[in-house]
This record gives sequence, structure tokens and C-alpha cells, in this order.
Amino acid sequence: MTELLLRNVRPMGGAAADVLVLGGRIAKGAAPDGIATVDGAGALLLPGFVEGHTHLDKTTFHQPDWLVNEVGPRIIDKIDTEREWRARTGHDAGAASLAMARAFLAQGTTRIRSHVDVDTSGGTRHVEGVLRTREAMAGLQDIQIVAFPQSGILARQGTESLLDAALAMGADIVGGLDPCAIERDPVKHLNIVFGLAERHGKPVDIHLHEPGAMGAFSLELILERTRALAMQGKVVVSHAFCLGDITERERDALLAQMAELGVGIATTAPASRPVPLVAPCRAAGVTIFGGNDGIRDTWTPYGSPDMLERAMLIGLRNNLRRDDEIALAFDCVSDAGAAGCGFAGHGLAPGARADLVLVEARSLAEAVVARPPRRLVVSGGRIVARDGILVA
Amino acid sequence: MTELLLRNVRPMGGAAADVLVLGGRIAKGAAPDGIATVDGAGALLLPGFVEGHTHLDKTTFHQPDWLVNEVGPRIIDKIDTEREWRARTGHDAGAASLAMARAFLAQGTTRIRSHVDVDTSGGTRHVEGVLRTREAMAGLQDIQIVAFPQSGILARQGTESLLDAALAMGADIVGGLDPCAIERDPVKHLNIVFGLAERHGKPVDIHLHEPGAMGAFSLELILERTRALAMQGKVVVSHAFCLGDITERERDALLAQMAELGVGIATTAPASRPVPLVAPCRAAGVTIFGGNDGIRDTWTPYGSPDMLERAMLIGLRNNLRRDDEIALAFDCVSDAGAAGCGFAGHGLAPGARADLVLVEARSLAEAVVARPPRRLVVSGGRIVARDGILVA
Ligand SMILES: [Zn+2]
Ligand SMILES: [Zn+2]
Repeated sequence: MTELLLRNVRPMGGAAADVLVLGGRIAKGAAPDGIATVDGAGALLLPGFVEGHTHLDKTTFHQPDWLVNEVGPRIIDKIDTEREWRARTGHDAGAASLAMARAFLAQGTTRIRSHVDVDTSGGTRHVEGVLRTREAMAGLQDIQIVAFPQSGILARQGTESLLDAALAMGADIVGGLDPCAIERDPVKHLNIVFGLAERHGKPVDIHLHEPGAMGAFSLELILERTRALAMQGKVVVSHAFCLGDITERERDALLAQMAELGVGIATTAPASRPVPLVAPCRAAGVTIFGGNDGIRDTWTPYGSPDMLERAMLIGLRNNLRRDDEIALAFDCVSDAGAAGCGFAGHGLAPGARADLVLVEARSLAEAVVARPPRRLVVSGGRIVARDGILVA
Repeated sequence: MTELLLRNVRPMGGAAADVLVLGGRIAKGAAPDGIATVDGAGALLLPGFVEGHTHLDKTTFHQPDWLVNEVGPRIIDKIDTEREWRARTGHDAGAASLAMARAFLAQGTTRIRSHVDVDTSGGTRHVEGVLRTREAMAGLQDIQIVAFPQSGILARQGTESLLDAALAMGADIVGGLDPCAIERDPVKHLNIVFGLAERHGKPVDIHLHEPGAMGAFSLELILERTRALAMQGKVVVSHAFCLGDITERERDALLAQMAELGVGIATTAPASRPVPLVAPCRAAGVTIFGGNDGIRDTWTPYGSPDMLERAMLIGLRNNLRRDDEIALAFDCVSDAGAAGCGFAGHGLAPGARADLVLVEARSLAEAVVARPPRRLVVSGGRIVARDGILVA
């Protein structure tokens, strides 16, 4: 059933309207006789949310026991702790990612980009697990898989060919990681990442936590390769913290290049460190979009499958208080997320895929700050969740 | 009914236990026959939460229409917008504060410090409204009232005597505001504030948004007066953003003085600007505690009567990820809040007031990051809310 008439809903908080779905897409015109009808009772209608950067495979969201976090302060402590914990517990990335993906769907997220670990301990096991989840969610939720070398490529012999295998078996995107700070050889690391991208004809999404001048340097190397390989519109830099702690002049010069090359930014908008801000990115024409990063894993206990909460955190981090500003925070988990990840047919216009969320809110800003329960979630024209619970 | 036996609850996430309440307080020993009993089913037991800095009088939380925020970027834009909006709408601070206080109680907050506006437009009308709310909530929730000169004292002739009147009619604490940046005459402003405190024998809580060296200068003037008037343990500085953007050496010198003088810090832990961090404050022996600041008012649409959410935001702002660190974030809305505001008898030890919250969580850290529904709220030994809804 992918025909549906939503009566009395307020698209994006605007005037009440009826929204027609035919063949799984938003349609214009008169509703056919006998079409299934939902009374929206004046609720707010939003397009299905986009999670632009998470790690479905890492989560402990589905596990009966609470994972006590006692990890050390450095990134390398977290990487090592995770790899050891995973070996010790036999963590099942398939079950983890499926539980997490379902939780996202119940809260209205119909599109997800997930980085998925590839390393010499687990091989491509995590990618295989998330591929099974993608298969299970097919038609309900789109999942992009980034083959992600969390433990680095250069230090662990064999990682490059594991990435190659992951891409061959269905990973969509080539991942990368801190070319200087972790990999210690930025040129070699990036040449492998972009080499894999070229060989497989797939885009790139690189975790760049490096601060200040070091991060800006790595970013320049990424932009040079994007230009040289004509990968305009095919590259995302995740985090890009450096853009938050260089001078505005330096930042704007980098943003201008990123806009020209169509390089997007995925941000979690963390409260505790400098970040690329939404306003200057948008002003420069750079697509910036939102994600949780890991949710309840060995790195962090925080995070939530509710993308309205991520929009709120983006709003708070960027001090977006006006209603028109909060709409930009929402955009990071909606249109900008779809554009940045390359999910087609997103939105509420006729022809878009009928991924829809109904919430009780008086305005878009209220939906973001209050994060009301999801009354209804529709994916591809089918009702998939009511009141936060998946149907069938 | 202030006798109660909570069976099978896990205080602070520890081992399951029974908790006895007699005469509205936590008691030791055997439960009397026939005592009312609640089966906790292994839920987490926490002490009632403390909201250390809010503005109950300003909120639009209770209003049927969403307030569209179109205010300008400067603090003075927000002050002027609010005063004009209030005059235009006839905003009822009594109704507003009562709705907000009740929402806090339903989510487990049994103690609140509220700054309440006193100015030459509204006079003491807001204080009178919140005094009525305090009366209505007596026995259920403690509300401290700070007589707060939101529009300044010096620029508006008559504000000092209005503050004097507010304190005479029952406000508990003398407020103040940016002695340099807003008031333009720090000595004159602080002499009035501390003069009122001396005259009424009441403590002080000053909003200090001023950044960097200017804020540090105002803070020094506050500390000098605290020492001169022997007001040890009677002064709170709210926000104290300056402590987040001076050198660590300068910061630690100020924190050492604050610890010596028992001057506390109320923080909202905003994500978008430098703040005093929890770890160095605690290391120096300074009490730092949490609050929302305004909730859904003309200043900001954000904020929530759920203090677990504030604890989460404090955790995120301070990058507190380990379970033992997240316990410190929770402390900011619990013990530290009670200590900083001077609420007596807080906690779960025998003799403490039986203000209790039951939530379904496996650990304290999970309660903070997941903010589960409040299954039960008890105030002074009485059940006041179930599943987020106030009883009778
Ligand atoms: Zn990540
Ligand atoms: Zn305030």
C-alpha cells in the first residue's frame, strides 16, 4: 500500500493542507476514490529525517547490559579500547546495526549514512553485518555504507585490501581518517583513499578531527585531490573541527574552495570543542549537514536515534534562536543532509519520495526544541511507525 | 500521607534496596505495619532534582500560541524586546510561573531558584506572581526568588527601591547584572546590590555574562565585596562566562579566591560560548551547579523542565563521557545545586527530605544520557507525579 491521503496536516508548519501520496511519491491532484486516509488533526508534517554521519555497527543500543565507560582521554585510547572490547565480547555488528536502524526509523529517519569499521581484526565482518541490515530495511530506509578504516590504513598491513573488498561487496563510499594525526603520512593515506575511490568509482567521506593548522593542511590535501580527480560533489569531510579554530580569513578561503568543489561537511556540532559553524558554511555555499556520530558505543554513551534532538544540538551549538535560524538547524537533518549524502527525491514537493513524519507542534521551531513524539512515520508511502513504535 | 516504603529500588544505580520514608524524611529501620508500599521493580532511585538558575516568570510555556522569535543579536535587543512584548501582551507572571513550576515537579524537580524580573515597567508584579506560585507549591516544591534587575538598576530611576520592596515582600536573594557591560558603572551597581543584601540580610546572585578581562574585573569586584561584608557562602555568580576565556592561570587564581569565599557558580553550560568548566571548578573546591536559564521565553525557545536533560547538556559541554564523569554532570542538578543554592536536607541519606525520583535506567549515566520518563516523583514523602503526570 503506497497510496495514502494525509488530511489536515501542516507541511513545515505552514497552513493546513491535504497531502496525497501515489505510487510511493508525493502527488498532485485529486485523490482516487477509496484511498486510505489519515486524519492529521492539524499536526506538523516534515519530510523523513536524514542521519548524515553515524556508526550503526558500533552501538550497544540493543544490549541488555549497560556498558560502563572507563576509557582514557586520547583518541588512540578509544580506538584501542574499542578493538579490544569487540574481540572480547564478540560484538555482533549485524544485530547492533539492525536494532539501531529500526530505532531511527521509529523516530522518523528514513535515510542514513553509516561509517562501518574495516580493520585487520574484524576484517569486513562489520560491513557484512550492516549489508544484512540494509537488506532487511530495503524499501523502508536507505542506508549508505562508508568503508571506514577506524584503526588506520598505514599502521595495519592488509587494511587497504580489506577496504577494497568491502567496496567490492557493496560499501558505497570510501572512508578515511586523520591523515596527519593518526596516519602520520598524509600523502600516502590520501593517495590510498582516493585511489580506492577512483578504482571503484565511489565517493569519499573522511573523518578529520585534526585541529587548527594541521587539520587545515590535511583539508588542503583533500581539496587538491578532489580537484585533480574531478571528484566535484563526491567528497565529504566529517567533523572538520579545524574550520572552527583557524582565523576567519583562513576559514573563508577554505570554504570558498569547498564550495567550488562541492565538498560537503558532516557535523555533530559537539558542544565541547571548536566546530565549523552553520552560518559561514551556508554563506559560502558549502553544504553542512548533521549526524550523531556514534550512539551509545565504547566511544560515547550519548546520542539518540531522534534527529530532531540532533537538530536541537546543532541549534544550541550555533546559538540559533530565531525561528528562521532554527529552520537552518532542521535543514541540517533534512534537505542539506540529503544533498550532502546524495539521497535523491527528498522533501515535500510533488515527485519526492513519500517519506513523512507527523508531529504535534505548532511550528518547525517547536518541533526542534521540544522534539515531540512521532505520531506517524511514513516511508515510501507506507505507514511504518505510529507513536514511536514500528508497525509490523 | 508522608509515610512510604519504596521496595526494590536502586539508589543512584547501586544495589537494589528498600527505602523507608517516615514523617516526610528518609528513615532507617523497620517499616511500620500497614505502611503504603510502592514496588520499584528495580528502577533507579534519585533524589529530587535542583534547578539552580531559571526564570519562571518569563516563560511562554503555558501559552496556546507559539511565540515566533525574531529578536536582534545583542543582549540589549533581547532586554528591550522582552519589556515591550510584556507590556503589549499583558504577560501574567503568576500563571506562567505556576505552569512552569508544575512542569518541573512532574519531571522530578523539587527545588528551584528562580530569578524574577523587577523593573520600572512591571514594578514588583512578577515577584508577586511568583510569590503566589511559591504559595501554591508550598510543601511540594521549594522556590527561591531572586529579585532580578533585568533592565538594570542605574539606567532606570526607581529600580533600587523596587528591589528593596521585592525583598521586603519575600524575595529571598538580591540579583544583579553585568556591572560593566550593561550597567556602565560597576562600583555603583555592586554597591547597590551588596547594600541591599546587607540591609535585608539576604544573599546575592549576580548574572555575569561579561567575557574575558572585563568579566574577570567585575568578578574581582564581587569577590572584594563578599570578603569585606563577610558574606562567605552567600554569593553566587551566574554564568561567569569570563572563567572560560581567560588564561588557566588567571582562572585558577579567581577560582582559589571563590573557593575561599564560598562563592558558587550557576551554569547553563551553553554550547555556543566559553564557559566555566566543571572539572577545574571542582578541583579548586568551587561549587558549580546547573540550570536552564529561561525556558521558551522571548530570549530563547530552548530549555526544558527536565533537569536530566540539563545534566546531559552539561555533560556534553564538558565532554564528560566516562560513567564517573557523568556522575559529576548529574551532581550539578543534585547535591551541588542544593549546596550552591542553600537547600537543606537534600539527598538520599537518612534524615534527608524524601524528595525522590524513580526512573527506568540501568545506571546513573543512562539516566542522564537517555532521560527516561519519570515513573514516580515523591516530594516530602508524598507521591506527587506518576509517569510524568501530576497527581491531584
Ligand atoms: Zn564518526
Ligand atoms: Zn538568567
